[in-house]
Amino acid sequence: MAIADSAGTAKADNDVYVQRMERAKAEMARQDVEFLFVTPSSDLTYLLGYPAHASERLTLLCVPRDGEPFIVVPTLEASRLESRRDVVDIHRWDETDSPTRLVAQLVEGAAGATIVVSDQTWAAFLLRLQQELPDTRFAPATGVIRELRMIKDAHEIQMLREAGAKADTVWEEFVSGACLSGRTERDVAEEINARLQAQDLPGAGFNIVGSGPNSASPHHMTSERVIQQGDAVVFDFGGLWHHYWCDITRTLHVGEPGNDFRQVYDTVLAANTAAKEAVRPGASCADIDRAARDVIEAAGYGEYFIHRVGHGLGMDSHEEPYMVAGNELPLQPGMVFSDEPGIYVPGEHGVRIEDILVCTDDGYESFNHARRDLVVVE
Amino acid sequence: MAIADSAGTAKADNDVYVQRMERAKAEMARQDVEFLFVTPSSDLTYLLGYPAHASERLTLLCVPRDGEPFIVVPTLEASRLESRRDVVDIHRWDETDSPTRLVAQLVEGAAGATIVVSDQTWAAFLLRLQQELPDTRFAPATGVIRELRMIKDAHEIQMLREAGAKADTVWEEFVSGACLSGRTERDVAEEINARLQAQDLPGAGFNIVGSGPNSASPHHMTSERVIQQGDAVVFDFGGLWHHYWCDITRTLHVGEPGNDFRQVYDTVLAANTAAKEAVRPGASCADIDRAARDVIEAAGYGEYFIHRVGHGLGMDSHEEPYMVAGNELPLQPGMVFSDEPGIYVPGEHGVRIEDILVCTDDGYESFNHARRDLVVVE
Repeated sequence: MAIADSAGTAKADNDVYVQRMERAKAEMARQDVEFLFVTPSSDLTYLLGYPAHASERLTLLCVPRDGEPFIVVPTLEASRLESRRDVVDIHRWDETDSPTRLVAQLVEGAAGATIVVSDQTWAAFLLRLQQELPDTRFAPATGVIRELRMIKDAHEIQMLREAGAKADTVWEEFVSGACLSGRTERDVAEEINARLQAQDLPGAGFNIVGSGPNSASPHHMTSERVIQQGDAVVFDFGGLWHHYWCDITRTLHVGEPGNDFRQVYDTVLAANTAAKEAVRPGASCADIDRAARDVIEAAGYGEYFIHRVGHGLGMDSHEEPYMVAGNELPLQPGMVFSDEPGIYVPGEHGVRIEDILVCTDDGYESFNHARRDLVVVE
Repeated sequence: MAIADSAGTAKADNDVYVQRMERAKAEMARQDVEFLFVTPSSDLTYLLGYPAHASERLTLLCVPRDGEPFIVVPTLEASRLESRRDVVDIHRWDETDSPTRLVAQLVEGAAGATIVVSDQTWAAFLLRLQQELPDTRFAPATGVIRELRMIKDAHEIQMLREAGAKADTVWEEFVSGACLSGRTERDVAEEINARLQAQDLPGAGFNIVGSGPNSASPHHMTSERVIQQGDAVVFDFGGLWHHYWCDITRTLHVGEPGNDFRQVYDTVLAANTAAKEAVRPGASCADIDRAARDVIEAAGYGEYFIHRVGHGLGMDSHEEPYMVAGNELPLQPGMVFSDEPGIYVPGEHGVRIEDILVCTDDGYESFNHARRDLVVVE
């Protein structure tokens, strides 16, 4: 199933989008929601196969629980939706029209209704919609969309599996013979970017290279720091493969590490393994976090594991379900998420090891197989 | 002035951000607004030099009209703000905390207040903030932010000028000896991407290549269509240079064009020139649109010019001010915007020619100088 990147293609996929919008309606009925508003984001790509970018010009898909879906689009972009004409009614607005007013006019029977809005909808639009539709209740669409996107179908799993294999290749090729000492984080990140592109993973990927004390900042912004002997270096990168993400983290050491670092590394690796082994249908998201955290706490590093153990992965690089304390959601086959425990000792070093897993009927499959043992480079 | 990409750098720039937040407070006082909420977006980069990406973990800068600014950040990202510690109070939240509740607790004297929210703030956050702060009025921050960002300072103008020169170089090098016939739009777009990268314009740029009938779709999504003899081809691309955009559009013809196309091309070029010549302090944004539209309407193509003539450009590729009918905002020196009239004949061909202009004390300066005459290639 391809997602249309231009007018006139991928008509054959329309059945998929019709089915997804029907599933949305069923979920809305279950949750007592009358209207779903979706603006450009992965939610729109998922529901309509329309990978538009968010901009100051409103594009908004409305799925009514009890009616036909429609989309409001700027006139200058309407031709991009030619192939979706059989799936949604298309309403254009011109540059001097008010698109939020148009939406309000098209929503029939809104008084007293609950309207859920896709998470990433811009506040500027939501605030205007709230003004145009004063007698309605607006709420986040998180709970509706989650039920649709959280469990991946066979096609999605295959894309994520292929994406994972590409990330593995990037890492294995990078790490074989890597020499980091004396290079900047940015220089190394550019090498990884080039390797991602060579694997046809272009575009707006992410790429963290955190060295030395920067390795203790989980979301470090890659800098001009020169990597030195004695540094730990955390790599966390990914890219999009046919609209699905890969996401992998590995940690190297430059020069022989001391025992402190080895112990941290071994603990993180054991926590990564413990989380994997906890994955099965019916285990809760919190259980997965707990499994990794128990290992790290038992080793005495609990205070240094400052984030949840994982996040869902799919069309977004972070999405439901989240593997975090308090999330009692039970895992189901087809859920895809990261397993990425870490220990971050401020000012010294950090270690994180991340693989992407899918929950299967009796456990898990990992989409990442790149080596996880401690690699020491020059 | 550099924007910090990592902790500990660019402390010297803090004065700039203090001044910008003071300007925000003055504008809030003028507009009778008590609090400004800003989440990751160019607004946050502008106000605090913190180029974070939006994610499901809330980062929120609060600028109170009558108090000290603070920022709420996930614990795992707090170290990235080390260099801003003198500019804002930093409040961390852990993975199991509610960041919107934390914001509500930190906002003192909110009852009855007006809170304006940056345009791109996610609806999921805004809806939760509205719940946490029920006795307040939420509105878009558009009008406050616009007053801060719309008029560029000397540094910003220099970055935009340099970015424009780079776009020119990409185009001039691409077009000299270009042979398009038989290549796909995507293949040609990849060549332009590589040329952008060679000019150090990496990252999340944009790149439209619309050929033949696709040239009549202003925001065409670059496709696998094979470019043929007789095609018009519209190119619209840009990238980020030190956080500031370039944005250029040129149109080629493959093989000798007919008179119809030549007339369309000449009309668009004349409209582009007419818009430029209308630029001066005190002219309205609508005047600039009108100047181009008059030329196109007089030539009989009015119905095919289906978008405004331009948009502001800066840290966002589309920002205030917009050159559109009805926008009576007067131009001021330092405003930077695109001049991009187009004619789109459905099913046949389209032409668009775009330059970036800055309004000066007595007219305009163009940041683009790449050739605008009709280029015919094979």
